[in-house]
Amino acid sequence: MKVGLLGFGKTGKAVASVLLEHNDFCLEWIYRKSSQLAHRSAAEFLDIHVQDPSEIISSEQICIEQLILEKPVDIIIDFSSSEAIHSYGEYAAHLGITIISAISHYTKQEISCIKKLGKLTKIFWSPNITFGVNYILFAAKFLKKINPYVDIEIVEEHFKGKKGISGTAQKMAEVLDLEDHKVNSIRVGGIVGKHEVIFGFPYQTIRFVHESISREAFGNGVIFAAKNLLTKPKGYYKYEDLLQEYFVQK
Amino acid sequence: MKVGLLGFGKTGKAVASVLLEHNDFCLEWIYRKSSQLAHRSAAEFLDIHVQDPSEIISSEQICIEQLILEKPVDIIIDFSSSEAIHSYGEYAAHLGITIISAISHYTKQEISCIKKLGKLTKIFWSPNITFGVNYILFAAKFLKKINPYVDIEIVEEHFKGKKGISGTAQKMAEVLDLEDHKVNSIRVGGIVGKHEVIFGFPYQTIRFVHESISREAFGNGVIFAAKNLLTKPKGYYKYEDLLQEYFVQK
Amino acid sequence: MKVGLLGFGKTGKAVASVLLEHNDFCLEWIYRKSSQLAHRSAAEFLDIHVQDPSEIISSEQICIEQLILEKPVDIIIDFSSSEAIHSYGEYAAHLGITIISAISHYTKQEISCIKKLGKLTKIFWSPNITFGVNYILFAAKFLKKINPYVDIEIVEEHFKGKKGISGTAQKMAEVLDLEDHKVNSIRVGGIVGKHEVIFGFPYQTIRFVHESISREAFGNGVIFAAKNLLTKPKGYYKYEDLLQEYFVQK
Amino acid sequence: MKVGLLGFGKTGKAVASVLLEHNDFCLEWIYRKSSQLAHRSAAEFLDIHVQDPSEIISSEQICIEQLILEKPVDIIIDFSSSEAIHSYGEYAAHLGITIISAISHYTKQEISCIKKLGKLTKIFWSPNITFGVNYILFAAKFLKKINPYVDIEIVEEHFKGKKGISGTAQKMAEVLDLEDHKVNSIRVGGIVGKHEVIFGFPYQTIRFVHESISREAFGNGVIFAAKNLLTKPKGYYKYEDLLQEYFVQK
Repeated sequence: MKVGLLGFGKTGKAVASVLLEHNDFCLEWIYRKSSQLAHRSAAEFLDIHVQDPSEIISSEQICIEQLILEKPVDIIIDFSSSEAIHSYGEYAAHLGITIISAISHYTKQEISCIKKLGKLTKIFWSPNITFGVNYILFAAKFLKKINPYVDIEIVEEHFKGKKGISGTAQKMAEVLDLEDHKVNSIRVGGIVGKHEVIFGFPYQTIRFVHESISREAFGNGVIFAAKNLLTKPKGYYKYEDLLQEYFVQK
Repeated sequence: MKVGLLGFGKTGKAVASVLLEHNDFCLEWIYRKSSQLAHRSAAEFLDIHVQDPSEIISSEQICIEQLILEKPVDIIIDFSSSEAIHSYGEYAAHLGITIISAISHYTKQEISCIKKLGKLTKIFWSPNITFGVNYILFAAKFLKKINPYVDIEIVEEHFKGKKGISGTAQKMAEVLDLEDHKVNSIRVGGIVGKHEVIFGFPYQTIRFVHESISREAFGNGVIFAAKNLLTKPKGYYKYEDLLQEYFVQK
Repeated sequence: MKVGLLGFGKTGKAVASVLLEHNDFCLEWIYRKSSQLAHRSAAEFLDIHVQDPSEIISSEQICIEQLILEKPVDIIIDFSSSEAIHSYGEYAAHLGITIISAISHYTKQEISCIKKLGKLTKIFWSPNITFGVNYILFAAKFLKKINPYVDIEIVEEHFKGKKGISGTAQKMAEVLDLEDHKVNSIRVGGIVGKHEVIFGFPYQTIRFVHESISREAFGNGVIFAAKNLLTKPKGYYKYEDLLQEYFVQK
Repeated sequence: MKVGLLGFGKTGKAVASVLLEHNDFCLEWIYRKSSQLAHRSAAEFLDIHVQDPSEIISSEQICIEQLILEKPVDIIIDFSSSEAIHSYGEYAAHLGITIISAISHYTKQEISCIKKLGKLTKIFWSPNITFGVNYILFAAKFLKKINPYVDIEIVEEHFKGKKGISGTAQKMAEVLDLEDHKVNSIRVGGIVGKHEVIFGFPYQTIRFVHESISREAFGNGVIFAAKNLLTKPKGYYKYEDLLQEYFVQK
């Protein structure tokens, strides 16, 4: 599968390194705003010894539609910014290119745009594309479905400087329908990221815990999405849709 | 629902107390080997102020078939011993009584007997009937199904005197296809019971943790099974079958 | 050592059972407000087969000074109420009886009274007399002393109904000089009691975790205090004073 | 304080970066076997913008005694190999240079050499120089001293490829006098390093947990040692000696 990546910040770099090291994917190009590193190969820059072209291209050189035309790909992975979808979405969708977006927040208008694109191609969006966080959310959601009155609290731990409640904890609270004060945020030292969902029953306790080790986890989340979309028809997909499948089939 | 309970050891007592305090169930009788407490009411003995007859009856007074005939019930809950199924299984099944068994180990012959009874009535068996342990096992099983090559280890912690690997951890290892040395048993002090399944991915870790607070958790497991069997057709059921349903329905 | 116990609520009963099962202590009497169980033996009531008199005596029958006179003891253990100290403190202190108080809150006036008694006898006070909680607090206090700028947060978990921040967590926050929002209280299901102090360093994290299994832990805390006071001179002691000793001796 | 560093592998680099970013230390030089990076500045190589010379020097260019003579330092930090002590130990000690060694294993002969050097200068050795691991070990050791019969187990978790029991867990087991089977090693995914010491009492559980986030933790351990040795007389020191001090002073 030929892949194009949008965004080459800290997370973009980690995702690129995971894609480069995976044999089923060929990273054709990386498209970014900055002209820094332009024309260099991401593989060489990241010191990974593979043949993928992985050319770093700046939006100052060429518009994204032109790039897609010249160097076609099967999948576009979007780690750039929410408005980017307007610049490539329709064009890519008409060409049947699968879109995997890991943008944290979309406006209502952007979300409606994404859903429309699902009529033309496969489009997947997850604000936290890490596999583990989504699996825990899925398992927690059904645990609550089975026990609607169970007490639930969330503990999320991050490095000292992190502002506000983590986006992932907010999403969890939303899906589990928890009041704000049920999310407990710990901010100490250099903790990379830990999320714990605690289910308190009268005579037993269940905990789902996710610990992040490094940003490369986002790359693995992308690969999970890409592989699971392969056999799917056109449509708009969320993480839950891909996970659900494994439980439905006997 | 009228309920009869087999067994009145420590766990049987805890289960009785949970059933007595639940309005949807009426505990008709408790059947046990010992003649201790015979003819007393379990409700009175356990100091729970409800109207359930909950008569404690010894196998020295009356055979189980006679008891079922004289004081009919909708559900039989078995916390006694593995061979008990032979004394009441066929009789109860022909009367269409639902059977919920929490026996830890059955012989092959007994298991085949149970499966046959599933053609006559609803019969459910779980060697550890706690809801939480089974939910974790379910979530873990599917996590492995999605990631067949993920590294998995189990840590189980119990009070000092507990011999051997816990039955629950053994079951987990079996379902997750783990080698023996992947189960780590901690035996210290008075820990009631904790099971942790650790999934190690390259860039993230997922943990499912179950902590037991008291034996009453078995009672809640029975109630979950009883309620979920209500709308089911005849057949032999495991915990997984009841959980699966929640994931299948959209 | 002959012991008298004040208070026979849930915690008092658990403490009595631990004292009864310990060979070095003889539980002479239990003094309580209620006249319920009066004149019965606590050993018999708790179904513990030992010879300790352990007579349950009500304050309606006899005043505490008279009781001490008639049935002398070496140690008085106070699990009753804060004002009790006024009824027996001076009298017992003049007789050289060691006083171990586990009262949760004393008024300023009562604290000053206790400190004065330390000139006459050995008197020990701990609002949470559990050994583990105090050891963790001790270890945490010195960890902060060594690293004054480390980030610290507390997570305390208890059963759903528990109101407000736990007294133990409050004490911890006070000793570690933490702002209120650094204490995170989880209230779910039937959790007996868990306290975790998290120290976040830039490149590592240290956690001290205490989990309560049952109230008998208070009894063991009493025994630790009693044994460690044995060789001490007259004075007013806190848990920290007893622990410190182990670190000072090479 | 002028500092010289021996060793520039992964850990050496992490230690160098912590030293460079700390104002109280000036990293004069790094001495290593390999001639790679020779004459470059570690600050520049690690992209840290400070004035420390931090020259990388190979043992192929100059012998260590000559280097010490030409570019004198107050402290030598040894992250190289066990035999290195023979090449610089006596020379440095005679000059009164403080030696901080983080070598994992020394032979008996090397240990006796180190102890002798303690008559000439301040010399500190810790096989795992991370502050947190040593603090936990210290707190655990005294907890056992106070409760000699408490049940203890260790759980250590590391990335899949790590062979054998971790050196830190071995040290812990040795200090706490635990049998081999009380150390439980988990090997899954990419876990950086976690050590948990579990103390099981009949009615409560205490856990000390240390989690490593990155190798820079070794650098902070070095700084702790260097600062605490400042005011000490000549002698051979272990981590415990430095920690003890905080507990002794009132």
